[in-house]
Amino acid sequence: MAIRKIMVLNGPNLNLLGLREPELYGPGTLEDVRLLCEAEAAELGVRIDFRQTNHEGILLDWVHEAQTGAAGIVINAAALARTSLSLHDAVKGITVPVVEIHITNIYQRDAWRPSSYLSKAAVGVICGFGHDVYPLGMRALCNHLNRKKAV
Amino acid sequence: MAIRKIMVLNGPNLNLLGLREPELYGPGTLEDVRLLCEAEAAELGVRIDFRQTNHEGILLDWVHEAQTGAAGIVINAAALARTSLSLHDAVKGITVPVVEIHITNIYQRDAWRPSSYLSKAAVGVICGFGHDVYPLGMRALCNHLNRKKAV
Amino acid sequence: MAIRKIMVLNGPNLNLLGLREPELYGPGTLEDVRLLCEAEAAELGVRIDFRQTNHEGILLDWVHEAQTGAAGIVINAAALARTSLSLHDAVKGITVPVVEIHITNIYQRDAWRPSSYLSKAAVGVICGFGHDVYPLGMRALCNHLNRKKAV
Amino acid sequence: MAIRKIMVLNGPNLNLLGLREPELYGPGTLEDVRLLCEAEAAELGVRIDFRQTNHEGILLDWVHEAQTGAAGIVINAAALARTSLSLHDAVKGITVPVVEIHITNIYQRDAWRPSSYLSKAAVGVICGFGHDVYPLGMRALCNHLNRKKAV
Amino acid sequence: MAIRKIMVLNGPNLNLLGLREPELYGPGTLEDVRLLCEAEAAELGVRIDFRQTNHEGILLDWVHEAQTGAAGIVINAAALARTSLSLHDAVKGITVPVVEIHITNIYQRDAWRPSSYLSKAAVGVICGFGHDVYPLGMRALCNHLNRKKAV
Amino acid sequence: MAIRKIMVLNGPNLNLLGLREPELYGPGTLEDVRLLCEAEAAELGVRIDFRQTNHEGILLDWVHEAQTGAAGIVINAAALARTSLSLHDAVKGITVPVVEIHITNIYQRDAWRPSSYLSKAAVGVICGFGHDVYPLGMRALCNHLNRKKAV
Amino acid sequence: MAIRKIMVLNGPNLNLLGLREPELYGPGTLEDVRLLCEAEAAELGVRIDFRQTNHEGILLDWVHEAQTGAAGIVINAAALARTSLSLHDAVKGITVPVVEIHITNIYQRDAWRPSSYLSKAAVGVICGFGHDVYPLGMRALCNHLNRKKAV
Amino acid sequence: MAIRKIMVLNGPNLNLLGLREPELYGPGTLEDVRLLCEAEAAELGVRIDFRQTNHEGILLDWVHEAQTGAAGIVINAAALARTSLSLHDAVKGITVPVVEIHITNIYQRDAWRPSSYLSKAAVGVICGFGHDVYPLGMRALCNHLNRKKAV
Amino acid sequence: MAIRKIMVLNGPNLNLLGLREPELYGPGTLEDVRLLCEAEAAELGVRIDFRQTNHEGILLDWVHEAQTGAAGIVINAAALARTSLSLHDAVKGITVPVVEIHITNIYQRDAWRPSSYLSKAAVGVICGFGHDVYPLGMRALCNHLNRKKAV
Amino acid sequence: MAIRKIMVLNGPNLNLLGLREPELYGPGTLEDVRLLCEAEAAELGVRIDFRQTNHEGILLDWVHEAQTGAAGIVINAAALARTSLSLHDAVKGITVPVVEIHITNIYQRDAWRPSSYLSKAAVGVICGFGHDVYPLGMRALCNHLNRKKAV
Amino acid sequence: MAIRKIMVLNGPNLNLLGLREPELYGPGTLEDVRLLCEAEAAELGVRIDFRQTNHEGILLDWVHEAQTGAAGIVINAAALARTSLSLHDAVKGITVPVVEIHITNIYQRDAWRPSSYLSKAAVGVICGFGHDVYPLGMRALCNHLNRKKAV
Amino acid sequence: MAIRKIMVLNGPNLNLLGLREPELYGPGTLEDVRLLCEAEAAELGVRIDFRQTNHEGILLDWVHEAQTGAAGIVINAAALARTSLSLHDAVKGITVPVVEIHITNIYQRDAWRPSSYLSKAAVGVICGFGHDVYPLGMRALCNHLNRKKAV
Repeated sequence: MAIRKIMVLNGPNLNLLGLREPELYGPGTLEDVRLLCEAEAAELGVRIDFRQTNHEGILLDWVHEAQTGAAGIVINAAALARTSLSLHDAVKGITVPVVEIHITNIYQRDAWRPSSYLSKAAVGVICGFGHDVYPLGMRALCNHLNRKKAV
Repeated sequence: MAIRKIMVLNGPNLNLLGLREPELYGPGTLEDVRLLCEAEAAELGVRIDFRQTNHEGILLDWVHEAQTGAAGIVINAAALARTSLSLHDAVKGITVPVVEIHITNIYQRDAWRPSSYLSKAAVGVICGFGHDVYPLGMRALCNHLNRKKAV
Repeated sequence: MAIRKIMVLNGPNLNLLGLREPELYGPGTLEDVRLLCEAEAAELGVRIDFRQTNHEGILLDWVHEAQTGAAGIVINAAALARTSLSLHDAVKGITVPVVEIHITNIYQRDAWRPSSYLSKAAVGVICGFGHDVYPLGMRALCNHLNRKKAV
Repeated sequence: MAIRKIMVLNGPNLNLLGLREPELYGPGTLEDVRLLCEAEAAELGVRIDFRQTNHEGILLDWVHEAQTGAAGIVINAAALARTSLSLHDAVKGITVPVVEIHITNIYQRDAWRPSSYLSKAAVGVICGFGHDVYPLGMRALCNHLNRKKAV
Repeated sequence: MAIRKIMVLNGPNLNLLGLREPELYGPGTLEDVRLLCEAEAAELGVRIDFRQTNHEGILLDWVHEAQTGAAGIVINAAALARTSLSLHDAVKGITVPVVEIHITNIYQRDAWRPSSYLSKAAVGVICGFGHDVYPLGMRALCNHLNRKKAV
Repeated sequence: MAIRKIMVLNGPNLNLLGLREPELYGPGTLEDVRLLCEAEAAELGVRIDFRQTNHEGILLDWVHEAQTGAAGIVINAAALARTSLSLHDAVKGITVPVVEIHITNIYQRDAWRPSSYLSKAAVGVICGFGHDVYPLGMRALCNHLNRKKAV
Repeated sequence: MAIRKIMVLNGPNLNLLGLREPELYGPGTLEDVRLLCEAEAAELGVRIDFRQTNHEGILLDWVHEAQTGAAGIVINAAALARTSLSLHDAVKGITVPVVEIHITNIYQRDAWRPSSYLSKAAVGVICGFGHDVYPLGMRALCNHLNRKKAV
Repeated sequence: MAIRKIMVLNGPNLNLLGLREPELYGPGTLEDVRLLCEAEAAELGVRIDFRQTNHEGILLDWVHEAQTGAAGIVINAAALARTSLSLHDAVKGITVPVVEIHITNIYQRDAWRPSSYLSKAAVGVICGFGHDVYPLGMRALCNHLNRKKAV
Repeated sequence: MAIRKIMVLNGPNLNLLGLREPELYGPGTLEDVRLLCEAEAAELGVRIDFRQTNHEGILLDWVHEAQTGAAGIVINAAALARTSLSLHDAVKGITVPVVEIHITNIYQRDAWRPSSYLSKAAVGVICGFGHDVYPLGMRALCNHLNRKKAV
Repeated sequence: MAIRKIMVLNGPNLNLLGLREPELYGPGTLEDVRLLCEAEAAELGVRIDFRQTNHEGILLDWVHEAQTGAAGIVINAAALARTSLSLHDAVKGITVPVVEIHITNIYQRDAWRPSSYLSKAAVGVICGFGHDVYPLGMRALCNHLNRKKAV
Repeated sequence: MAIRKIMVLNGPNLNLLGLREPELYGPGTLEDVRLLCEAEAAELGVRIDFRQTNHEGILLDWVHEAQTGAAGIVINAAALARTSLSLHDAVKGITVPVVEIHITNIYQRDAWRPSSYLSKAAVGVICGFGHDVYPLGMRALCNHLNRKKAV
Repeated sequence: MAIRKIMVLNGPNLNLLGLREPELYGPGTLEDVRLLCEAEAAELGVRIDFRQTNHEGILLDWVHEAQTGAAGIVINAAALARTSLSLHDAVKGITVPVVEIHITNIYQRDAWRPSSYLSKAAVGVICGFGHDVYPLGMRALCNHLNRKKAV
């Protein structure tokens, strides 16, 4: 049987990880995160497709692509979670499950930031545990997939 | 005399038509919609340039392109109608008329969706009649162009 | 087979058409609009029952009357679209379809005007194309009725 | 001694009872409601004057009429409870007590519906018990009148 | 030369004057107000057409009637000033000037009352001086008419 | 057949009845209310379990207890109706019907008081009739139970 | 008997009258307004004390001064009506009546302007009739004083 | 070395699990959840102290108790997450880390529910994955503790 | 004559004083505060009854108890001041005076904290002076009691 | 050693004390308040500089003056506490401590009054105890100064 | 030809520059700022009239004075930019151009500060560059004047 | 020493400059603006990298690029300043300074436009001076860089 593939998608500015406000986002780079995800994938028995883009349109394309090419999505959409209604609609528009993650606890950020549209379409949300949200999100997604399969 | 050209522009996630929430958007695909528009174009004596993109920037480029290359625009901007102030400004920035359409009645959607910026720049709005909003929008645009020509 | 009847209902102040703020509503009178509707009715193969009233109660009575006496309603409720929750409830309370029209683009009017209750009950909305919204609304309604019949 | 008269007033769209959204308002008609009220009147030893109108102005006239012709009012003002400040002022302007009733639990309806002006003028409110709100409202009114008389 | 005619229009519940909350509206009746207006009319050299209705539709009809039959309107629209967008639109729709009056200082009433739509269409507003607002409104209107005539 | 049991639950500060703001809540004590309920119970052919607590947690426990031990609940949750989302959730979490009552007309209280969460979970609401809301609430509940039984 | 004295107070920027946005405020100067007031004073049989200041503190001092030195105040507080809670409190703090006037219809100004604090303390408000609001305000004040005297 | 202890705290109504709205919360009981946590504890090499209460005060006491008796807290505070500022302050007042979990995706619940206070004090939030949020929360907490220990 | 007794009540989390965010609340413990109050009591010639609880229900019970057992209450309700409408109602429900105190300046705390309900029922408020608010509150209360006694 | 000087500053309308709404502010005059402060100063071993002005600019000058000429400020800024951002900034701009006082409980005043800017800059707030807030404020300030000196 | 004169006006608390929150406003004094402006004036070939006041009324007088005595105004109105509608109206009331400057980036200040009224009347806004905003504002003004002159 | 490079970035629709609403944005084209910037660059002794894009993603890429390739950024983000939280985060994520400019006074635009996110991340803001904002922004940036270098 083919190994299950999970897309791990990263939105705008996450290429700056390690540089951008390290007191908030930690000192590790996006490459460090990718390795962390690979390790978790090995443990979970899945493979991952790890990507980053600063372009909302590309992110939408990738979400659509998952519909036929992946078992699920773990997505750190960064600011687009809060501003992109299109991303919300893309997630609503596909049938594979999507898990929303954020490195920081997004409920403790500036009051003027709008709340997440994405949370209204995602299966669930995990935030605030630093880079650990990636493996936690992958695990939550796999459990979710296993439970659905079992039914 | 050259046949009048109308751009029929489609925004994010409309490539999913037929797949995405069919109870809301109907079972037909975007290709079905294109054919519907072609048929109406024949009846109205115009030709259409039918496009779709998930990229806001490309949509802006297309709107600019209409300024020199089309008589008017019928646009289903999807979620970008509600979030893209840039799209609003692009429509304000050109002088060819723009008609806003939506497949669903956008005033019956979730209360947390922001209202349409695009409506503040478009000539008029048609929504809620399923795929019929495309030919209705084309007809509304042509009538509008004929009336202006007559003056 | 009997010809399908459509009610075309007009709310408060529309009797002033041609007099009232003509830069907004155009120079034509309500009688001009009626003739426009008659012409469209001929083309669509339906007959219309065209009325106007300044009384909300009478408008409610007419909407109720449609339930047994018409195939559908095209309604320009004017300010009552925005303030009459009773009108909204009347439209909800009948099963024949209702199309909401407005001569101006109501999303470009004063910010202090409340949004339309009626839009939450109508099948769809057409606004901003001047008097053309009447024939467009009739066409949208007939298409809608034909599609339902086909099912 | 003359039998006490109570006005039971019904506002817009209640003539549709039984037809209008029966999953919300129940299958019975307004005539069924009238009979229910007559039965309760017999039990309470009062007589009722049961009316319905779609016209706000007529409802105001009736409320004024109660001042000299009735012991109290039980009113289901439907949507006018939420939008008619004039009705609120009419109730404030008379000295006979008014009981507000609603068939549905109005606090569980759409969030965009404004809250009831009428509740700010009525003695009390009863809602959510289906047609039973009519006899309950009559009973509440009679108790209220008896207590005042006793003082 | 014909004597200038002024319509003095009264909205819902003003027939209760003298009965309704006399600590707010004074002990005098609407007939007392009419006599006060007649006296002021004599002093100003105009004649008045003094009316009251509880029906919004009738008030709209009267405002329209003024367009051809009166030099101006002094209107105490009561609660309709705050809730009737149709009345606002009627005043906008005619070209004869309209003066808005209120017996009480409407800015000291309950916080939950919406602000006046009518004030956005009227030439000016006078409120808070009890029944004196009627002759003051008539005087303000006549001065306004004289100044326009002089131009 | 066993006599139907109804829980009549009272929330915080209701032990002060007769002392607390008697111009609002009446001069009677909670014991007077209990006797009123007993009398109504006799008339309705049910028995009651009448309790009061100042502790939200105990109120939740009692609501849970009703699930297996009572036919329904009449509850005057006092301020907790407006602030306890937990109470709302408890009522949602059981399947026996709950009737919300308040001695005063809660829609005429201070504007800064939040609206009732409880109303979003209760079958219906009765308020403003003084102590009469207790027997009225019991009657409304019994009618509701009888109707369900009949089905 | 001494002639009654009325203070006519003018707030910030009114010294610019005739210069400042004349399409809004008219071409006349503040001296023209003073003469208008003097003429009206003669007709009403009172004398006036006409002043202007750009200093809120001085305006407060003048309002206090009226308590012992004038029968009443007619005040055009300009922008301070909307922003000076101190002015509101000063008017509340004295017992002589105060009439608020504005040259323009202040309810038709920019939506971002806060509403008038002063209106919550003044006897009544007159606005929108150009310079006529001064004599109208004086007349309203004198009527008010006469009525109080008569009691 | 002693095994690390984690408190797993449950707030109001969670004793109803399996009964309460099972389409939202799943068919399992709180005992099922406890077993799930025990299993995860075994895998993580920690022991748990699993409790439930309907009393906010007891929940506060338990949070305080953790300060000296546990390595961290995983808490499903249910409705109290949204309404108990005291709970927020308790979490702020201790130095052991707290992880907030919810069975449902709380951002997809009713719009009128206030947002979570608790999220502003917790290390992070996990919601929407059904009962899995318990083991996920325990894992997130342990990772967090390990990382701190490593520093 | 008996010495006057004052209740000094402390709400949730104040048992953590000295531990909880000492940069905000100071290094002293609640026992230190008690001693400070005892000292002030000696100076003021009163005795105190000093208590703390994390349970809202117990706090309500204590407030009720004061009605017959104390001359007044000084209360630091902590977060319950802002969220417990029941506490507000309890204070309204008794006739002995209540003084609200807070260690920190509550108007400089997070914007998302709701404002104090308690302030709407208390005689007065003292906040921001650290532990000194306790003796200041006791002094304010005694002065208040003395003045009332003198009347 | 020089005796510590405290400025006691009074803002707009406080010169009316005893005249202005005595049911709110008490019958005593500002001179009575000054004497009360002198007495407390004697007890506290400080001297005071007691002033009042209706001019915001003068109040700012005085606050600046305190920076070099006083140990602290007790200020009753009246309405300026709520509207003068400049006063807030002045208090922020100096380093001597400022105590905000109000005679009435400002949280029980009209809902439309904005909240106090000053509270965001002052050390602490005391309100609602009538004239006693002056000596209480002086005492709070002296304690605050003593504590800082001790450090 | 006379050298162009520019008024450089400073509002409340700017006399504290160098003392007031130097981490926000920098260590330089207002005299340093004046010298900076003199230097820029020399470079731009204009002369300046540099003033500061804590009195809103004086600031208004100065703005009026500019109408006849200066080519333009550069104004740092400090907190009055946000609260003085009178200042806004003064700037609207003159025809010489006004440039608004602020030392700090005012859009990064406390969320509770109201936005600037002044920005709605000024030609443009410069903020956030420390003392450099003064010479930048002078340069912006001169460019603006030169361009107008050229037309 | 290498000449300092400044990026001058332009967002959506600025390619339309000269065409788009010239009464707002002036008749010059973006090429005219580029020449203006080149001239200023020569005067300031820097070189510029002048770009425009309609794609948010590209704008983000360019901002990131500046981190290693430029001394600072002057950015006219057009509508993206108000809607792109991603752009805000990009600016926060780099350490080179960013100056926000706008051709029009953005505080005088439509009330429904959201305020600028970018202003919360930029060093400072300059707007309203037409094309001059480009050289002014470059000057502000260079001064800022020089000052930092001097430290």
